[in-house]
Amino acid sequence: MTDSRLAGPVRIVGSGLLGASIGLGLSQHGVDVSLDDVSPSARRLAVDYGAGREAREDDAPALVVVAVPPDVTAAIVARELERYPDALVTDVASVKAAPLAELRSAGADLARYLGSHPMAGRERGGAMLARADLFLGRPWVIASHERTERAQVSLLEDLVLDLGAVPIELGVDEHDRSVALVSHAPQIVSSLMAARLVTGSEAALGLAGGGVRDVTRVAASDPALWVQIVTANAPAVADVLRPLRDDLDAVLTALEHPDSPGSRRTIADAIAAGNAGVARIPGKHGQDRRFGTLVVVVADRPGELARLLADVGEAGVNLEDLRIEHSPGAQIGLAEVSVLPEVERRLADELEGRGWTIVDSVA
Amino acid sequence: MTDSRLAGPVRIVGSGLLGASIGLGLSQHGVDVSLDDVSPSARRLAVDYGAGREAREDDAPALVVVAVPPDVTAAIVARELERYPDALVTDVASVKAAPLAELRSAGADLARYLGSHPMAGRERGGAMLARADLFLGRPWVIASHERTERAQVSLLEDLVLDLGAVPIELGVDEHDRSVALVSHAPQIVSSLMAARLVTGSEAALGLAGGGVRDVTRVAASDPALWVQIVTANAPAVADVLRPLRDDLDAVLTALEHPDSPGSRRTIADAIAAGNAGVARIPGKHGQDRRFGTLVVVVADRPGELARLLADVGEAGVNLEDLRIEHSPGAQIGLAEVSVLPEVERRLADELEGRGWTIVDSVA
Repeated sequence: MTDSRLAGPVRIVGSGLLGASIGLGLSQHGVDVSLDDVSPSARRLAVDYGAGREAREDDAPALVVVAVPPDVTAAIVARELERYPDALVTDVASVKAAPLAELRSAGADLARYLGSHPMAGRERGGAMLARADLFLGRPWVIASHERTERAQVSLLEDLVLDLGAVPIELGVDEHDRSVALVSHAPQIVSSLMAARLVTGSEAALGLAGGGVRDVTRVAASDPALWVQIVTANAPAVADVLRPLRDDLDAVLTALEHPDSPGSRRTIADAIAAGNAGVARIPGKHGQDRRFGTLVVVVADRPGELARLLADVGEAGVNLEDLRIEHSPGAQIGLAEVSVLPEVERRLADELEGRGWTIVDSVA
Repeated sequence: MTDSRLAGPVRIVGSGLLGASIGLGLSQHGVDVSLDDVSPSARRLAVDYGAGREAREDDAPALVVVAVPPDVTAAIVARELERYPDALVTDVASVKAAPLAELRSAGADLARYLGSHPMAGRERGGAMLARADLFLGRPWVIASHERTERAQVSLLEDLVLDLGAVPIELGVDEHDRSVALVSHAPQIVSSLMAARLVTGSEAALGLAGGGVRDVTRVAASDPALWVQIVTANAPAVADVLRPLRDDLDAVLTALEHPDSPGSRRTIADAIAAGNAGVARIPGKHGQDRRFGTLVVVVADRPGELARLLADVGEAGVNLEDLRIEHSPGAQIGLAEVSVLPEVERRLADELEGRGWTIVDSVA
């Protein structure tokens, strides 16, 4: 008995973090999941973790999920299409046009290939880190192409919904343009900025506040993986970075001649364009909603933040976002508590009434 | 009777957020604070908020704090140096070499000028947002120059310590190079990336995850203010952005010819350099310490996060950092709980024992 939308059986090739998490999630719904991996020990580990059973010669999957590194995705998809002529084959690589083109030129049966892309944060790590709920609440793109049929999209939607993710259908090229803009280019930009910190003085790094920490956070990503990703999506990433480079050139020229006519305007325009761009990122729940933020002083010891949030909860207010700011050299932290604007004033009063110190309030 | 290190009297010129907050903090310690502002109504508002008393003709301040917009800072400092020949004059502008050069060429008495820079986040907003504890735990740079004497640094350290901030003495040029690297350049880079989002499709923006949100967060900053800041620090900002532009050019060339020899190496090197740079940002408590992070599922309703943090507190574990991840389209949130690596495993067990779902664990 299964309680899944998907009937199965499902074959998963690649038992890293993504493959094992998909297997775990489906197995918990009672779907018959078989696991294959070029590494027998990785495969056995995933089986031990409950992600499925060992693949057998006589498996007859309805769906094959290829969860291998981006640079071998197309080759494995092609192999699986040949091996299981009745199955729909999908993959989970973060780039979609390149494997499709590779499959097309290899003469693969594109009518049975439908790529997908779970936007589930980290893409590395083994089965040890696998979780049935890795995809909970995350967007999962189904990347349709000219040979895609409705029933196939439905089948993948069942997979996505069984795993608690949110299916989003996009064309292959639109997917790649989209992730170039909201994932791959920001990764490069973050890395380039972080690289500048290498030669900074200790004093300079000691002044690092929330801004530079935010800008460079994703710069901690794995080089080997990201080379595969951005190389596979090179034209779309270049299309984002080229005008960015032109804007940067204009700002640099303005900075080199700050008193020339138009220089200040160039810089102001660049920052105003950034205002307009960041305002387009949807807020929580997919709405373009701004929050009110209270900055609250929290002593740096166990339980203090919990006490603050308990007080927020007792005020009947739902936290929309929460960030902790580091306070170098001080035994206090600052908690940025974001709430709907209409309750911000009331919450501030409640918290101050309970003895909290609010050091800033930004509507 | 005062309980301050600073004896006063202190005169503050400019009663915006920074000036009024300094006045409020010092007044609460019993220091005699007089307030001046080119706008009489802004000045009266700050007085109403308790930031000090109205300035009088016969004031004889020991310290003058100039807290006016960057582009008029030098002119006001020069005026104050002339008006109060026995006072030390400081300012709070975020750039230090340009006003010093302006003062030098105006023939001002540099022996009594010692600039400073509180790293207190937002630099705009009126006296209504002023808080005595705006500077609590924040670095506050004292920017010494060739005419600076020890006693003057001590006097400003007293000011900084009275306001709960952390004094850091740097040379003027080192300050400007430092903030160019950790504040001004990241601002420009964030704005340039965010500007690319203006033309993105709705679908693309709908896929925006934590990475692009982090990279573009500070792009919401005020253009008028930032033009003044980066223009005043133009050479130092250009010195950071120029090699960044060169690196970007190299990555772009690699992306335009991804299969040429060396292209993948260029991209991998850029991302690896970003790894090295971000690793240099000091963690909480000024240490370069890595944390273990647990990603925990939290239902999107009042009190849930408080309950999680109460459980963390009851486990006797101190939170080092906490972030909430948005879950577009889902009624759940993900809390990233960062703790010292040595307690991570135990906390994970405790939380799972209390029914929490941990979807990821990153040592």
